[in-house]
Amino acid sequence: MMKYPLLLTNFMERAAKYFPKKEIVSVYPDQKFVYNYGEWYKRCCQLAHALHSLKIKKGDRVASFALNNHRHLELYFSVPCMGAVLHTLNVRLSHEHLIYIINHAEDKIIFVDEDLYFLLEPVKDQLKTVKHYVIMSQSGKMPETKLSPAVLYDDLIKDFPQGYDFPKDRDEYDPALICYTSATTGDPKGVVYSHRGLVLHAYAAGVTLGLGEGDCAMHVVPMFHANAWGAPFGATGLGCKQVLPGRQILDMKALCKIIADEKVTFTCGVPTIWMMLYQYLESGGEHDFSSIRAVYSGGSAMPRYLMETLANKYNFNIIQAYGMTETSPLATAAIPKSYMNNLSHKELYDIKTTAGLLALGLEMKVVNLDTGKEVRWDGKDMGEVCLRGPWIASEYYKDPERSKQTFKDGWLHTGDIATINEEGYISLVDRTKDLIKSGGEWISSVDLENEIMAHPKVLEAAVIAMPHEKWQERPLACIVAKPEYTDSITKEDIMKFLETRVAKWWLPDEIVFLKEIPKTSVGKFNKKELRKTVLPEVLKK
Amino acid sequence: MMKYPLLLTNFMERAAKYFPKKEIVSVYPDQKFVYNYGEWYKRCCQLAHALHSLKIKKGDRVASFALNNHRHLELYFSVPCMGAVLHTLNVRLSHEHLIYIINHAEDKIIFVDEDLYFLLEPVKDQLKTVKHYVIMSQSGKMPETKLSPAVLYDDLIKDFPQGYDFPKDRDEYDPALICYTSATTGDPKGVVYSHRGLVLHAYAAGVTLGLGEGDCAMHVVPMFHANAWGAPFGATGLGCKQVLPGRQILDMKALCKIIADEKVTFTCGVPTIWMMLYQYLESGGEHDFSSIRAVYSGGSAMPRYLMETLANKYNFNIIQAYGMTETSPLATAAIPKSYMNNLSHKELYDIKTTAGLLALGLEMKVVNLDTGKEVRWDGKDMGEVCLRGPWIASEYYKDPERSKQTFKDGWLHTGDIATINEEGYISLVDRTKDLIKSGGEWISSVDLENEIMAHPKVLEAAVIAMPHEKWQERPLACIVAKPEYTDSITKEDIMKFLETRVAKWWLPDEIVFLKEIPKTSVGKFNKKELRKTVLPEVLKK
Repeated sequence: MMKYPLLLTNFMERAAKYFPKKEIVSVYPDQKFVYNYGEWYKRCCQLAHALHSLKIKKGDRVASFALNNHRHLELYFSVPCMGAVLHTLNVRLSHEHLIYIINHAEDKIIFVDEDLYFLLEPVKDQLKTVKHYVIMSQSGKMPETKLSPAVLYDDLIKDFPQGYDFPKDRDEYDPALICYTSATTGDPKGVVYSHRGLVLHAYAAGVTLGLGEGDCAMHVVPMFHANAWGAPFGATGLGCKQVLPGRQILDMKALCKIIADEKVTFTCGVPTIWMMLYQYLESGGEHDFSSIRAVYSGGSAMPRYLMETLANKYNFNIIQAYGMTETSPLATAAIPKSYMNNLSHKELYDIKTTAGLLALGLEMKVVNLDTGKEVRWDGKDMGEVCLRGPWIASEYYKDPERSKQTFKDGWLHTGDIATINEEGYISLVDRTKDLIKSGGEWISSVDLENEIMAHPKVLEAAVIAMPHEKWQERPLACIVAKPEYTDSITKEDIMKFLETRVAKWWLPDEIVFLKEIPKTSVGKFNKKELRKTVLPEVLKK
Repeated sequence: MMKYPLLLTNFMERAAKYFPKKEIVSVYPDQKFVYNYGEWYKRCCQLAHALHSLKIKKGDRVASFALNNHRHLELYFSVPCMGAVLHTLNVRLSHEHLIYIINHAEDKIIFVDEDLYFLLEPVKDQLKTVKHYVIMSQSGKMPETKLSPAVLYDDLIKDFPQGYDFPKDRDEYDPALICYTSATTGDPKGVVYSHRGLVLHAYAAGVTLGLGEGDCAMHVVPMFHANAWGAPFGATGLGCKQVLPGRQILDMKALCKIIADEKVTFTCGVPTIWMMLYQYLESGGEHDFSSIRAVYSGGSAMPRYLMETLANKYNFNIIQAYGMTETSPLATAAIPKSYMNNLSHKELYDIKTTAGLLALGLEMKVVNLDTGKEVRWDGKDMGEVCLRGPWIASEYYKDPERSKQTFKDGWLHTGDIATINEEGYISLVDRTKDLIKSGGEWISSVDLENEIMAHPKVLEAAVIAMPHEKWQERPLACIVAKPEYTDSITKEDIMKFLETRVAKWWLPDEIVFLKEIPKTSVGKFNKKELRKTVLPEVLKK
């Protein structure tokens, strides 16, 4: 067989050549911009020329600081296909992290949305390698920005030829995109995506999730979050209609209107979005989901009632998937097997609420943290999820120390603790660092939290380990009562409630009532903070 | 990203690990054998041990001489995954070609179906490298064969362990299978399929044709014809139920019963099969196609009325695809684009009767034979189809001379002449060697034949080039009249009929009436024979 490299270039050119009339819809607050793959490709060509004119060479990093819009989709292909590397900057990062990742990646240009430039201004003097700012403006007006030198995107590209000879005699392992993942400790860690990895991920996601040319794919996941989960690549290669909702991502009324107007069939998003959608619908919000065929959720666990209600009441059927920045991201998807069509409603949702079954092309093992052996497929035995395959990262960019901790013996050690059921579906039960090891046995802090939160007086609960002389570690429960019960809730309430719900040795040794549980920037329980503040107080006693 | 090789091993192990209960159904004349991926994998492991015991090493060729059955599916994975190369022998080859390809590939073992061994006996003394024969028997009885040494497949494997450590630290370009394509002149030409090529073909065919775990794939294409068009690989990787119909391939009553009993959703075959199905159905044959979702046809052009009738009258909707042994084989598929759903019936079938649109991952150009430039997308301009991509062959096995003629400048020159329409769908109009070049312009022999065959008195017509002093070449039509018109048909009938149907310069210079058109072994017009026998007679005049 030919030694023909797997490049995003093939996907881009197929869309341009065979689907020039298919639409790309980019929604802005005050207008809807529509063009097609034919016009898109011409601008990708112009952009490639423009990058050359700005002295961008093979392997150089070019950054985007943007939401989901059509210029961002041009960057997605033109930058890697001309030879450079697109660094998608998370627009929600702290100044400190933003400065770190731009300098660490040595970005030479930053392409900025016209309504986001002000977020970059405060850090501009600390960016060591950035030579140019390009403002992506739909209004056509240059904002009064301190970013300098700055040029409007459309002005930059407009005089260049609409054809470009994208190189194909390249190594498929060439870097195409880079994305940093926020670390719970220390600086963000960079994951470099190769052309090969993205092409294979697109194929595997396509066959696993069933994407096809007839789909209209709306990208709700930000394009700076693990490449919008890779969906723009497969959608382009297959010639799907694509919808880029821009700022409307968080406006459920607008999002529902886009779904209805554009006849969206396929979309992905985090549970937070689907929770907002649920609240909008429950308040009587207008919607028409008749075109919807497939919706995927990932990033964190989807509450069961949310999944059930959206499916049963609103015909909005969500499939849960699992992955992370390091896995491009698709690793597993909770698609029931075809012989499960006679399951009861409960059994079906037992499957649908798992993290899913391994995608075609990867290898997975769930290993006991002590023995390193694979756990039993009984839905109870817990272990760390390890993955390997052609779209799994092998290292963090220029970070050998932290790479060593995560990538061992050719496997990505995800830090996620899971059980695996008889059918091979994994369920995430904790993070390795949050597990509690009591007398040589593991207690899942997440499982215990869920049981505590089932108590009618409890609003939130976070469980952490406290050191113990005899048992090494024992659970400490930090609980926030619902406002109406702050005065009446007692430790005995909780212990009595748990006695019938968990094994005796899982019962917390200590319970502390707090006003609130500290949260991370993405809204998860900040257990690091609890260990720093609450734990010493308890131990002092 | 990890340098993780693309191997069929991943597909095999995923089926075994995550879909052990899914069924493989193998139909024999007197029984239906059913097992599952769990049991299949154990036998694949035993077979790998057995191959070692027979001294098979990495890269050695192991042949199969078999129809579509479950042991053949074990060979399909076990042989390439343990490191050897499976050579699928076409059971319909002439003795001469069979001897040639077995010796040329240096096969060490031949696995033979228990009811096909007698086809190998006449050639056995001329096979220079074969050390063992393994009889694949469902009856469990060793036939009285002269093949020696011979052992029963099940006896060979039965005492080996049901686990095997298939190597994964391998080069994805390692050969996995080899298949010879019959050449119109000279010996058959070998195409070597790599693990990488087969994995990528499976992904691309999966997204292009929409194969999924819920499909039940029946393999009607023989497993010695370009790997049953690659369908067993994708179907296994995805965990599809698979049906292997064995000798029932040519028995339409049996085939329809299998479709109904097993609830087949997906199948592929050559037009000859679908013509037989059509005749069976038209004669009132029993059938139930309610489970059928996708049927693909390839190998030669599907007559339009056949496609229309099967779809409209029997709800058996066929999609035409195009490819060849050298392309793994999927190159194009005539799937209408989603915006074509408002086409008229005629327009839709104008698309469905093309050879189709390029599959995701390949590159295609249709080039003028004289200028080498790409033809216009007007459905008229003709050129040769050239292909390149990761599942396109780069050479013929150990045949540098003939490789040079077909593989040029990194492209496979298919020898197929096509037009390409405004939407990018190609239509095959001739073979390069059969085109007629008159005054610098090309005449499609196939188009001209079709026009002549539209005459009510004509049964068959083959057009070849005759040399011409002024125009270089001119068409010579060889015509067979329908039996009732053999005495009344005249050259004038034909010329008058053609005058209104083709351009004046396409009109044949000579017409010869024959009793029959000589055919090749696969039933195509043998124009080589016509050039040897009919042309000299005409030129003598």
